[in-house]
Amino acid sequence: MIPTPANPRILETMSQLFVSFPHCATLGFEYVGTDGRKPTLKLQWREDLVGNPATGILHGGVITSLVDTCSAIAVTAHLPELETIATLDLRIDYLKSATPGKAIHCTAECYRLASQIAFTRAVCYHDNPADPIAHGVATFMRESSRTPMLQEDGR
Amino acid sequence: MIPTPANPRILETMSQLFVSFPHCATLGFEYVGTDGRKPTLKLQWREDLVGNPATGILHGGVITSLVDTCSAIAVTAHLPELETIATLDLRIDYLKSATPGKAIHCTAECYRLASQIAFTRAVCYHDNPADPIAHGVATFMRESSRTPMLQEDGR
Amino acid sequence: MIPTPANPRILETMSQLFVSFPHCATLGFEYVGTDGRKPTLKLQWREDLVGNPATGILHGGVITSLVDTCSAIAVTAHLPELETIATLDLRIDYLKSATPGKAIHCTAECYRLASQIAFTRAVCYHDNPADPIAHGVATFMRESSRTPMLQEDGR
Amino acid sequence: MIPTPANPRILETMSQLFVSFPHCATLGFEYVGTDGRKPTLKLQWREDLVGNPATGILHGGVITSLVDTCSAIAVTAHLPELETIATLDLRIDYLKSATPGKAIHCTAECYRLASQIAFTRAVCYHDNPADPIAHGVATFMRESSRTPMLQEDGR
Repeated sequence: MIPTPANPRILETMSQLFVSFPHCATLGFEYVGTDGRKPTLKLQWREDLVGNPATGILHGGVITSLVDTCSAIAVTAHLPELETIATLDLRIDYLKSATPGKAIHCTAECYRLASQIAFTRAVCYHDNPADPIAHGVATFMRESSRTPMLQEDGR
Repeated sequence: MIPTPANPRILETMSQLFVSFPHCATLGFEYVGTDGRKPTLKLQWREDLVGNPATGILHGGVITSLVDTCSAIAVTAHLPELETIATLDLRIDYLKSATPGKAIHCTAECYRLASQIAFTRAVCYHDNPADPIAHGVATFMRESSRTPMLQEDGR
Repeated sequence: MIPTPANPRILETMSQLFVSFPHCATLGFEYVGTDGRKPTLKLQWREDLVGNPATGILHGGVITSLVDTCSAIAVTAHLPELETIATLDLRIDYLKSATPGKAIHCTAECYRLASQIAFTRAVCYHDNPADPIAHGVATFMRESSRTPMLQEDGR
Repeated sequence: MIPTPANPRILETMSQLFVSFPHCATLGFEYVGTDGRKPTLKLQWREDLVGNPATGILHGGVITSLVDTCSAIAVTAHLPELETIATLDLRIDYLKSATPGKAIHCTAECYRLASQIAFTRAVCYHDNPADPIAHGVATFMRESSRTPMLQEDGR
């Protein structure tokens, strides 16, 4: 999509930075690696992240946080220079319940980078991306937009 | 939508139960009250929930967890008897950045309860629902479905 | 949301223009009126718009076209000056089947106009918006953005 | 995902049936073929399907109809027996404008078939799926569900 050669060391550094951010550190996200420009994160099962204690299944919101973070890294992996991005919208489909006690992986890719918007998709799974737990699609607003989206002058 | 009279004490008890679940407790969700069948939750700003430390803005995943939880309570408020529900899909639009340091409220409603699926929408805001931070729509799978969705016999 | 006074005559003229566009004319969209800045369109049931001839129910794509068009008019009703907008994404939930033979109405509103993005929601119904057939949410990209989204210089 | 061997002749017959349905015939959908269980449809550019006559670009609703139909065929290609399915929700991202005058192809796949719900994704493009115009994800309700979703007894 973009001619810039992906620099593995830069991707690694940035990904480590992302997972060190407060909420990601609170949830215990780990950076696993990047295949081309597709980063993979990992989340260990933890009792304090469970949604319903009767089943021991992780809260869907934890999985959504994982998708959001991994997708943001995937966008960053396509940017020629460092810039700020903001999630504009995100949709997640829960395909089956995660298994209590097992770690969850998330792999994301940015499949289109436009001048103002980036589009991503992500898949969450235990061991095999072909047996997914959840799929997520999101759009991110790029900093390159003239006016910051969040200070509407149109209000 | 449903003839069952909403029992405020039951709604209150169930809502308190939901916010006591592990991940909700970890994030610090509080139950504020229910207007009719529309529950409101509250999330205090906390440094360990921040997405980007440069801005102090909460991670979008925290807000999504809040929407997911509040929407689930809204569905429960429409059920004639207690039953298990599972999030099927969720979409969130981030309308503007949350203000660092300020608490976020979420109000949700279940606007259609079908025999197998429940549809919800939710709004997140600081003080005024008319000045929203995020909107979320979700669908939930009801237990009343004959075969549990998650043990596919079709596989 | 915006200080510009809505001019009913301009809204009427623009709405008539929108429904006269080729695909809308092909499907037979009619402009019903605008309440504040919320336009309502109408679609007569027609045999050639049916999705499944066994049931006589309109194709979901017709309803989505109606939502897309009505939402675009709702955005236009908030713009201080005429500008081009493009649908960025759209999600529709089908709440119940439309009744064969009955006309469908769609009412849309733009609930947030940011400098580059506009957010809308719409409801489709036969006679009563409180008994909805479908709900739709969409985002539109505004022309005011510096670089047209569709000529990515980032490719 | 499913052990049933896909019978190419049955897939072909069903796909031809789908595109012969009234609204699909009105829009001129053509069945191109099926790769494994992934059907491809084609839509010729036509002046009466244009959204904005100033640009000659097809109305987004036409593309959504194409996604909806192709996704439904993809679900059917996974079903062991013929059954009725209904679109539950659909989300489409418009990645770039279609080129006026050029045909659009849509390829869809059903990536998970649960007992009650089927999940699909689709891509629209001119010549190359790797240079997409739009992406769509949808969920379909299967007939196998005990109670038809659309006759809610919960109302």
